[in-house]
This record gives sequence, structure tokens and C-alpha cells, in this order.
Amino acid sequence: MSKNERLIYLPLGGAGEIGMNAYVYGWGKPGKERLILVDLGVTFPDMDTTPGVNLIMPDITWLAKNADRLEAVFITHAHEDHVGAIGRLYNQIKAPVYARPFTAYHAKRKMEEAGQNPDEIIVVGTYPEEIQAGPFKISFLPLSHSIPESSGLVIDTPAGRLVHTGDFKLDKTPVLGDAFDEGLWRKVAAGGIKALICDSTNVFSTKPGRSEASVGPELIKLVKGADRMVVATTFASNVARVQQLAEAGAAAGRSVCLLGRSMQRMVRAGVETGILTDFPTITPPEDARTIPRENLMLLVTGSQGERRAASAQLARGKYLGLTMAEGDMFLFSSKTIPGNERGVARIMNAYSEMGVDVIAESDLYHVSGHANQPDILRAHEILNPAIVIPMHGEHRHLRKHAGLAVENGRNAMVVVNGAVCDLTGDAPRVVEHVEVDRIYLDGNILIGALDGVVRDRIRMALNGHVLINVIVEDGAPLGEPWVEIMGLPETGNSRAALIEVLEEDLGQFLMRAGRKTLADDDKLGDELRKIARKATMAETGHKPETTVIISRLEG
Amino acid sequence: MSKNERLIYLPLGGAGEIGMNAYVYGWGKPGKERLILVDLGVTFPDMDTTPGVNLIMPDITWLAKNADRLEAVFITHAHEDHVGAIGRLYNQIKAPVYARPFTAYHAKRKMEEAGQNPDEIIVVGTYPEEIQAGPFKISFLPLSHSIPESSGLVIDTPAGRLVHTGDFKLDKTPVLGDAFDEGLWRKVAAGGIKALICDSTNVFSTKPGRSEASVGPELIKLVKGADRMVVATTFASNVARVQQLAEAGAAAGRSVCLLGRSMQRMVRAGVETGILTDFPTITPPEDARTIPRENLMLLVTGSQGERRAASAQLARGKYLGLTMAEGDMFLFSSKTIPGNERGVARIMNAYSEMGVDVIAESDLYHVSGHANQPDILRAHEILNPAIVIPMHGEHRHLRKHAGLAVENGRNAMVVVNGAVCDLTGDAPRVVEHVEVDRIYLDGNILIGALDGVVRDRIRMALNGHVLINVIVEDGAPLGEPWVEIMGLPETGNSRAALIEVLEEDLGQFLMRAGRKTLADDDKLGDELRKIARKATMAETGHKPETTVIISRLEG
Repeated sequence: MSKNERLIYLPLGGAGEIGMNAYVYGWGKPGKERLILVDLGVTFPDMDTTPGVNLIMPDITWLAKNADRLEAVFITHAHEDHVGAIGRLYNQIKAPVYARPFTAYHAKRKMEEAGQNPDEIIVVGTYPEEIQAGPFKISFLPLSHSIPESSGLVIDTPAGRLVHTGDFKLDKTPVLGDAFDEGLWRKVAAGGIKALICDSTNVFSTKPGRSEASVGPELIKLVKGADRMVVATTFASNVARVQQLAEAGAAAGRSVCLLGRSMQRMVRAGVETGILTDFPTITPPEDARTIPRENLMLLVTGSQGERRAASAQLARGKYLGLTMAEGDMFLFSSKTIPGNERGVARIMNAYSEMGVDVIAESDLYHVSGHANQPDILRAHEILNPAIVIPMHGEHRHLRKHAGLAVENGRNAMVVVNGAVCDLTGDAPRVVEHVEVDRIYLDGNILIGALDGVVRDRIRMALNGHVLINVIVEDGAPLGEPWVEIMGLPETGNSRAALIEVLEEDLGQFLMRAGRKTLADDDKLGDELRKIARKATMAETGHKPETTVIISRLEG
Repeated sequence: MSKNERLIYLPLGGAGEIGMNAYVYGWGKPGKERLILVDLGVTFPDMDTTPGVNLIMPDITWLAKNADRLEAVFITHAHEDHVGAIGRLYNQIKAPVYARPFTAYHAKRKMEEAGQNPDEIIVVGTYPEEIQAGPFKISFLPLSHSIPESSGLVIDTPAGRLVHTGDFKLDKTPVLGDAFDEGLWRKVAAGGIKALICDSTNVFSTKPGRSEASVGPELIKLVKGADRMVVATTFASNVARVQQLAEAGAAAGRSVCLLGRSMQRMVRAGVETGILTDFPTITPPEDARTIPRENLMLLVTGSQGERRAASAQLARGKYLGLTMAEGDMFLFSSKTIPGNERGVARIMNAYSEMGVDVIAESDLYHVSGHANQPDILRAHEILNPAIVIPMHGEHRHLRKHAGLAVENGRNAMVVVNGAVCDLTGDAPRVVEHVEVDRIYLDGNILIGALDGVVRDRIRMALNGHVLINVIVEDGAPLGEPWVEIMGLPETGNSRAALIEVLEEDLGQFLMRAGRKTLADDDKLGDELRKIARKATMAETGHKPETTVIISRLEG
């Protein structure tokens, strides 16, 4: 190990937020490190900060600039916040992408959807199988999480072994897929772990996590006790849960029908990759319509209240000919992600109005996919790393996680998006900062978060929009100014039409305006804007966005 | 009791939502009932559904039309969702408003702020003191809640006695104000209760509620254990909590400073109305700046992450010369109301970045102000009403509450906003429906929720806005069309400027357009809009709002 070479860790997304994970590791001389990328995910927009945006992705400008140094990409699992951006951003990185079969299945689809070659996704096995990527040797460590084939990464570097957990929990009975295997973890850790880069999502949950297997018997009890139709929702990617729900339906003698594209897609992915081997018979929706409702169980998308999901469509009326009715049961086998409360409540209330019994936020029918605090600490203890770097969390999660590690005598550091952390020595050090922003998939194009487009939309939403058109002919105003409004009340405090008040004020200004002002587009525009904003404020209390169009005619 | 007369209950707000409470009771011949109104509150807007709106109020059009039949208004307590609209809507109802002193203090301020006469608010005492209002006799029944002087109403009608709970919990040790007095409740119920109109907020909380007094000792322990500055937030109107927080500060030998207008206003209201008698000495902010931070405790507004509150301003930097620093403690002595999670998390993360220890969502330092399910059922049992009408809840809360009452052998019914419920007989019956909407305080004017103004804002926020200006001279286009965009990316899929693409497409259309189309503003506008939307969709994936201005010149 040359004295000048170093091991770096650089999160581009996921460290300071829960979402859009993208973590870079590098080894080499400063500025010349050979790089690998772990995960390339998305996060979801909200009306408060990103109206009109479809998806949010990490800004990988730095990585794109250094794409020639990038050896490979590794995807830990198939959740959108880990794989969702691989297709859209692939042409910026163009490096081989490694994933296990179920994850690769989804990554390939992302590539196809973005017009990229799905064969860039390379399907690999698990530890001790290794992938050589420049100075790194990487293997996939099977973990339990809320999706099949979730994996940590064992990253061997010239400075020592790293473990990057990805998302994980310690579940010895995960129903489907890989169980927590303490022996395997101890084997991985036997030679010493230099640094553990570790999931922080549930660090504030102080009780030990519960196993996926604990949910099944409760589901069976619940469904067996139901009189009429049972409809249940969960994250479609939680294939173990979907299977347990389906089995509960089958155990109660019900036909099981999947509604919603992602529900069908995930089950198909599970079957095609050999993960789902004995899923109960699925009844297609067209057949379900003819089955007595007390013999039916629907598994539907939309656990987060998404407006277009099957759960929301059923709440509004019909979906593929199926409807909910009084006495039916709707189960949220899920937890509402913070921020989605209102959408979920909207659906619950719609069902309530139909007389449907809603069961939600019950620990009996849901367990988390992330390690709680005691489990995180147990992972520290088993792997016994010299350094702990918390990831996959908002700042408060990272800080809490680092604090716990320090209390236990480990070196730990909060490393946020854009911070280049040198892991070469005994203690981690942030040595540089890289510009990181966010990229929006907006409609069907990519824009930067700082482009001002979304800011303008938010302003229009808060303040409305006033449009002013004036015609200037040979340096003099021709006729009256013309005003249109959007998102503002038609009449304000004076009880006169707002448009007329504005046209009057602007017209008076134009009549008095000097030739110099009239000749200067910028100055004239500024003055018109100022008058319109002031008058609108007086009339409505809103200071609107304004757009001025000056048409100049030569006589 | 004449055979033709009837007792009606008509919620105009609060039944089908948590917020903007407004409940009408009436007695008399159908259509001629003499009326009283209980509460007139607001609810708060959100970016998803009501961007740019300041406050949401119930639509009291029906009541305004029947204002000559309205005998009086009764305000149960001073929370915004019960008193907040009294000033803004007073001129629609113009009837005497009765409230207890602390509530009246706030109601008077609402009247003043809206330019109404505060003397319309009449200060009254409690049961057995009665107010005669047409055929009704009303008295204020002291209750425990999370604000001083919260009251139920005992409403004696020719058809029997009603109890309208307002917001309540069963707290025998509420620290400040009225304790739950079972003896008094039994006395009220001794002659029989025809109907209980009852708070449903916490009907899904299955454990018995906890007393406000349980919080104090925990707060003292926490503050005594803190090394550096302690900052705590709670709802300012929870005067008992504010007092307990201040006492915890004083017990730890700290100077206590109140930050944020509502915090100062509520404590002043408490002192002026004689509720707060031994509040610890308050240190003004200018003095607090010179006190060593380990000797300081700040009580601040902003428990819900409100952007302008003291908590948010401290999170962004300085507030009145005071700043937070590493090692300080910030306590949320509160619960995050669903929908506010993101705002609260934003503040928590900002503090985390400063190295401030945040304590939040802990049952140790907060109790709810509403009766949980067992307490609701205990209220039913004590008052033993023939009929239960759930209120103060979303539909799912009302339905659950009614279901529990029915299970216990009572008559119960879900009555939502706008439903006229006849309570005269043994069983409640919905006999009519009244149009109810919502009124927005938008900037400084009132608009209807269905006016389309807010819908246009949402559309602009989701899709952007395209402005098109064309000049038609003597029936022929003069020059090229002019396009401006707002909230849309400058360049789209073709990599050309979006404005130029649109101007090109629109220009080509204009060149080919027939004289008939050019002569018809509506037709021309529609065609231009269609072309602009289609081209914008192709370029960006957004179908924008469009505004067309056609200027016609006569040669």
C-alpha cells in the first residue's frame, strides 16, 4: 500500500435523507482513485417542495466527470431508492452493473425503460463469490430485509475490508429469501473489518425488531374471521408479505386476486427468478368478478395512498369491475411513510363512507424491514468494525447512530452527501467536499433542482400569476394594456374585477410614462410588474408572479 | 311540545374532518327552527390541496341565510379550530357570542382583528349558570382538555337534555383549570340525557388517556439533567404544559424566556384572566442573551414545524439574538399532527446538524388532550345518553365511535357536515341535506373552495404555464406569435429552446389559418392552446396551463 494512496467514501445520495442512495468508494492517489458505485436510487417528490416532478435522483455530475475512473456499479437490492435511477442515469456512468438475480431482473427493466441495454446488468452470486473491480474485490452478503435477495457488500480494499450493509434487519425467519446468518457474518468479520457503512433508518426504534414470520399466523386468523370480501395492501416488493397474505387467503378458502401492475410484476419477478416456488393459485380479475365476495381476497397496490394505485381506485369506485361494499375488510399490512399520512387517511375515510372496515397501523399485521437500534448495535458487535459510518438516514438518524457507536468505543463519523471521507487511517476524516444537488425527472426530461423551474411553480401555486400585454407603436402605447390572471380571485377588496383594476392602474401609468421608459423593455417591464404586484397585493393580499409581454410595432 | 316541532342537529364543519368545528342545533317547526351555533373554527391549509390559502373556514351560507333564526353562538374553548373563524364570519351571523373568560379573551381578539366589535362576546360562568337562547337553555360544563376552560355544553331543549362535549379528556389532575369531575357529570345526567354529541378524535387509541400531571416530574428530571441550554416547544395554548415546562426550568435554577408571539400571548391571557397565578418569573429575550446558556430555558412556538415560528427560526440561525449551539437540548413536548411530519423533520435535522440533541415523540413528555377510546366509553357510561352522535373526527373516527356506541346498546349515528339530523324521537334520523362547502381566507379575501382559483394554482404547480400573445391586424396575423413560459424547463427533448419550438409551431399554424378562424377569438384561442399544449407535452412531458392573449388592431 503506497503511502500516497487512499481509501475514500463519498455518498452522493442517501446520507442526510432516506432515499436516492448512491455511495462511491475509491482507492488510489488523491484525484486518481479508482471508483465503484453502490446503488443508484430515486426518491419521491411531494407537492410542498417538488410539485410537478416525477422522480428525484442524485446529482452524479462528479461521478459523470470521473466516469473513466469508475470500475463498476453494485446494486444491493431492488427497492426504488436503490435501483430506481440506474436506467435514467446510466449513460452518464457506463460501467458494468452487478446484481443478484431478483435485483438484476428489476435493474434490467429500468434499463429497458430508459432505452439502455439491459445486458449491461450482470447477474452474480453471493459470498464467497467475488467480483474484481479495479483495486476492489466485492462480494454480495445475503441479508434479510423487506424484499428478496437484499444484500450487504463485502468490499475488500488494499486498506482492509469494508462492509456496506445496504438495507437490512436481523431476521432469522424471513419467510422468503435469505435469513440472518450470524455464522456467515462472523466468518466475514473474522479477519477484521476496517469500516462498517451501516443502515440507520430505524435507529430511533429502541425495541428489537420483529420477524416477518410473526405476521403470517395473525394474517391467517384475521382473514379466517372475516365475513365478506377481504382486501389487503402492502408494498408489492415485500414478496414475503404478499406470499403470506395470499396464503392467509388460501387458508381461509378464498380465491386470491392481485390488483395493480407492481403487485403482478413483483410476483412474476419472484416466480421467474425462482424465489417464489409455491405461491397460491392466482385468480385473474375477470374471474374474480364472478366469485362470491366472501370467497375472495384481493391483494392490491397503494399502501401509501398513491392516487393511481388500486387501493385508491377501489376507494373511488370500481377497479377492473371490482368494487368494495359494506361489511368488507380493508387491511393495510404496512406502515404509512411520514409525509403520506394525508393520502392514506383520504382512502381510509372513503372506505369508511362505504361501510368498509379498515385495519391499519397495527403491529400485528406489519413488521419493519430495517434493523432497530438494538439490532444495529448487535450488527456492530458481530462485525466489530474499527470505524462505523452511518448511512441511509436523515441527518438526525446518522448523528444518533454515530453517537451510539462512539458510546461503544468505536470510531464513528457523520458523513453527509458530498463529503469525501478518507478511511485510510485509524480515524475517518472528511478531506474534501464535492458539489451535490438533485436531479429531477420532470415530465419526461431531466432538470436540475436549482434550475428555478420548480421554484417558479411553487411561487405560482402560492401567489398566482398575472400576465400583462402592452403594445407600443412608434414609442407610444397603443390602446390599453391587457391583463389576464390565473390562480387569483376574480374580484378583490374593492369588489371591482381584479383584471379591470389592474388594467386601469397600468393604463394610467402608461399614459404618463416618458418616451425613455417606453423605449426600454426592461425598465417598462419592471415598472408594469411593480404596479401589478402592488395593486394585486392591495386587492387580494397576494403578491403574484408576473409576466409582461411588450409587443413593439413600427408604424 | 307541539307535535310539529322538532329538534335538529346540523354540523356545518367538524363532522368528517378534524378542524373548523361549527355545529347547529335547532328547535321548532321544520324550516322555522330557532337556532344556536356551537363553535366557529378554522382549519389549516396544505400545499397538496390548498396552496396559497391562509385559512380554511366552514361554509356557513345556510346559517347566514337563516341568521334571523339564530339566537346565539357558544364557543366551547379557545383552540383555533373552535374559535378561529368567529371574527371573519361574524358579519354573516350577527348574534350574541357566549364564552368563558379565557375563551372570550381570544374570541374578542379575533373580533378585533376582523374589524368587528369585541363587545359582542359575552363572558359567562359555568353550570348551573344558564343562558336562555330562544327555546334552549345552555350552560357551560367545565371539562379537562389541553387548553384552560374547555367546556362541554349542557343544552336543555323541549325534547330533552343534550350534552355537547366539545373537546375533552377525563383528567382528574390537569395541573391547570378544570379537572374531570365525575360527580358533576352524574348530576348533569341525573334527569336523563337525550343525546350526547361527543368528541371522536382519539377513538382509535385503545389505552386509557394519561394525566397532564404525569408530565411535570419527567420534565423536571429531564431539564435538571441537561448540561447546556434547554429549548422546549409545545402548543402555546396548552398553558398547563407551558407552566410545567417553565416550572421545570425554574426547578433546575434556569431563567425562563418565552419566544414567539403566541407563546407570550397565551401566557398573558392566562395571567389576565386569572388562570395563571404563580407562573415562574419570565426573562425577556434581551436579558436572556446575557445569561450563560446552561442557566437558560427557552419556551418557543413551533411544535408543528411551522416555518415562521421561533423553533424554525432558531433552526435556521438566530432569533432575537439567541442561537442554538452544540450540546444544547431541544424538546418537542408535543405530538406531530399528521401531515406536519416533513416540517418537523426539517427542524430536527437542522438541529442535528448544529449538534443539538433533539427529544421528540416521547410519551414521557407529552399527553394528548383528547379522550381515548376507554375514556370515551366511560363518558358514555356516566352520562348514559339515549343517543350518541359522534363529532370532531374524520369519517373513520365517527364511524368507529358510532360502532362502539351501538355495540353497547345505544342509538348512534354518523352525521356528517351538511346532514340535518332529527333528534326528536327515540332514534336519530337524517332528514335533509344542506349544501356545505369550505371558505378560504386567501391572502386577505374570502373565496369559495369551488371557485376554481386554487384548482388553477395547483394545475400551474403541476404543469407550468404557457402564455401566448398574437396580434391580428385587419384579420391577418401581424408578425410572429410571442410565447412566454413559467414553471417549465427552458429546453425540452429536442434540445431547442421550448419557447422557440412553441413560437415556430404556433407561427406555422397562424400562417395557414383561415380568415374565419382568425376572426373568432374563441376558436383561435382554442387552436393555439391545443397546439401549445401538444408541443409542450412532446418537449417536456407536461401538459401546461395556457393563457392566450389575442390583440386585435384595426388598420
